[in-house]
Amino acid sequence: MPTTDPSERRATIEDVAEAAGVSVATVSRALRDLPNVATSTRLRVEQFAQQLNYRADPNASRLAAGRSGAVAMAVPVFNSWYFSEIVAGAEAVFADAGYDVLISAIPGPHRRALFVSQTAYQRRADGIIMVDLAMGQGERDVLLRAGVPTVTTGAKSADFPGVIIDNVAVGRTAATHLAGLGHQRIALIAGQNEDPLHFTVPEDRQRGFERELEAREIFFDPSLEAAGNFSVAGGYEAMVGLLKLDHPPTAVFAMSDEMAFGAIQAAREYGLGVPEDLSIMGVDDHDLAAAFGLTTISQQVDHQGPLAARLLLALLDDHQPDELMVEVPTVLVERTTTGPPV
Amino acid sequence: MPTTDPSERRATIEDVAEAAGVSVATVSRALRDLPNVATSTRLRVEQFAQQLNYRADPNASRLAAGRSGAVAMAVPVFNSWYFSEIVAGAEAVFADAGYDVLISAIPGPHRRALFVSQTAYQRRADGIIMVDLAMGQGERDVLLRAGVPTVTTGAKSADFPGVIIDNVAVGRTAATHLAGLGHQRIALIAGQNEDPLHFTVPEDRQRGFERELEAREIFFDPSLEAAGNFSVAGGYEAMVGLLKLDHPPTAVFAMSDEMAFGAIQAAREYGLGVPEDLSIMGVDDHDLAAAFGLTTISQQVDHQGPLAARLLLALLDDHQPDELMVEVPTVLVERTTTGPPV
Repeated sequence: MPTTDPSERRATIEDVAEAAGVSVATVSRALRDLPNVATSTRLRVEQFAQQLNYRADPNASRLAAGRSGAVAMAVPVFNSWYFSEIVAGAEAVFADAGYDVLISAIPGPHRRALFVSQTAYQRRADGIIMVDLAMGQGERDVLLRAGVPTVTTGAKSADFPGVIIDNVAVGRTAATHLAGLGHQRIALIAGQNEDPLHFTVPEDRQRGFERELEAREIFFDPSLEAAGNFSVAGGYEAMVGLLKLDHPPTAVFAMSDEMAFGAIQAAREYGLGVPEDLSIMGVDDHDLAAAFGLTTISQQVDHQGPLAARLLLALLDDHQPDELMVEVPTVLVERTTTGPPV
Repeated sequence: MPTTDPSERRATIEDVAEAAGVSVATVSRALRDLPNVATSTRLRVEQFAQQLNYRADPNASRLAAGRSGAVAMAVPVFNSWYFSEIVAGAEAVFADAGYDVLISAIPGPHRRALFVSQTAYQRRADGIIMVDLAMGQGERDVLLRAGVPTVTTGAKSADFPGVIIDNVAVGRTAATHLAGLGHQRIALIAGQNEDPLHFTVPEDRQRGFERELEAREIFFDPSLEAAGNFSVAGGYEAMVGLLKLDHPPTAVFAMSDEMAFGAIQAAREYGLGVPEDLSIMGVDDHDLAAAFGLTTISQQVDHQGPLAARLLLALLDDHQPDELMVEVPTVLVERTTTGPPV
């Protein structure tokens, strides 16, 4: 029911996105009359925006008060589907609120420390989002002492609000699905062998995966673990290695969809049918997961960026967010790349 | 032959990348001992870096001289494969040279104008790269008057150095390939219907495509053109529309690989074999093109970002680049999604 009662909670851009069944970025683009939005989508978004009495945030004037008017986002790499989606989703919300977005690629601990110190001492940004970058205690202390509003995603931090998923549950869900189909010899395509940034996400996924197999009394052969570096090429190479084993797996859990895509390609090149000869599943629900028919665990990435941005905007407005640690639910999406073993 | 003669041209990061057969970003990551690089690749890169006597740029000290030490890149959207690759490739070169990188998403003309004026008048960055964003004359004048070192990619500009590909030739190559296989009814999955940013790339590709068909006396039925918004979902929707025609096409040229992936998915869901019933090709040579077996036109995206960064670094060092307009060659990559009509 449309309403204009000003005392009512104002509709957010997320409300419009949910009502119209599209992403926040799409709403933002549609309402600013920008490209890459189908006309039917644009009309639907406009209709819901009107129904919900949504208006873009008028508080951009706050930026006059001696602040930089910018927020900074730090990501490990740019050219990875997950990180580019997080940045795009957050950027749409920040643009809507009148903030510029600075982006830094953080390839290692040294750059991460530099990013933290520059933000704290040079104040080029009013607040920061650390995307999947676990900070050391020293870095966290610098940000806390300088009073830099900080939000994290991926890696959980006790010191700052954040957006998380339950990565242990992700690993459990994968093991449950594949073991439930009857597989006993299940391989794991994990992250990287050397990991100077100490990513916690792959660790958690592996712990959940191994614990669930153990609970089901299924032996996890360490030779069935391969590093896939979270890339298509890495997944391909990992799968090739697994297929050369004397006792290859009948099912594979890849910790990201991009690694799963590479694994599917390798399996096909070896003449294996997926899932007839080999089941493969991933994590993410990538844009292309449906095109591959990939069974995966959706982590609803399109919600994570906007949620992180909302948390930071609340901190910048000196509001304590209602919820300090926002957990996004994950959900198994069954498609056609997994089935019972032969 | 290794050499340490200081008078010789210093090896660049691109030289190492070419020698090792990997991307500039991979070299940068490998030499900084960062994740996402296979150990075998790391060793190969280190070997070639040593052979070529490569060292990271020591001129970072120039940043002390009253400059911001940052460069800014403006891209239309973050979450698109092409743009994220350009940013990642350029960022590796800038990081190597000691520059920070600010990134702005430019969803429309208003933000583009704002980006230009902020760069020119607030000097938050020492130079800028406009990625596939054709500027109006007024914007170009502002940058020229303010003396902001500027490089463009994608959209050619007479006022600034840039990295380009021959998009008319891309269209011709696609038409030549599909017509050469014997197709007469060839569809085009193009950009967007409404285009406030006036992208020139799709226009050029379409012109080359139509001219080549005309030269071969093949009628291009306007009902075979569909907007795909350069996204997987858009390519899917465009293909569904084309398959519903009374006289559907026997071949499709999609202007990007992501649109081609969506088109392949739609064709399969309609029970069509690719290429037995329908040939589909794209442009890009996306990370996942090989996994789809996609015939495409590679535009060597991994070279474009580093080349643009090198042009801007030359301008920042007050060198006139050797070549003001660097053209990256495109090349047809034949895989398995195109074949003769039935």
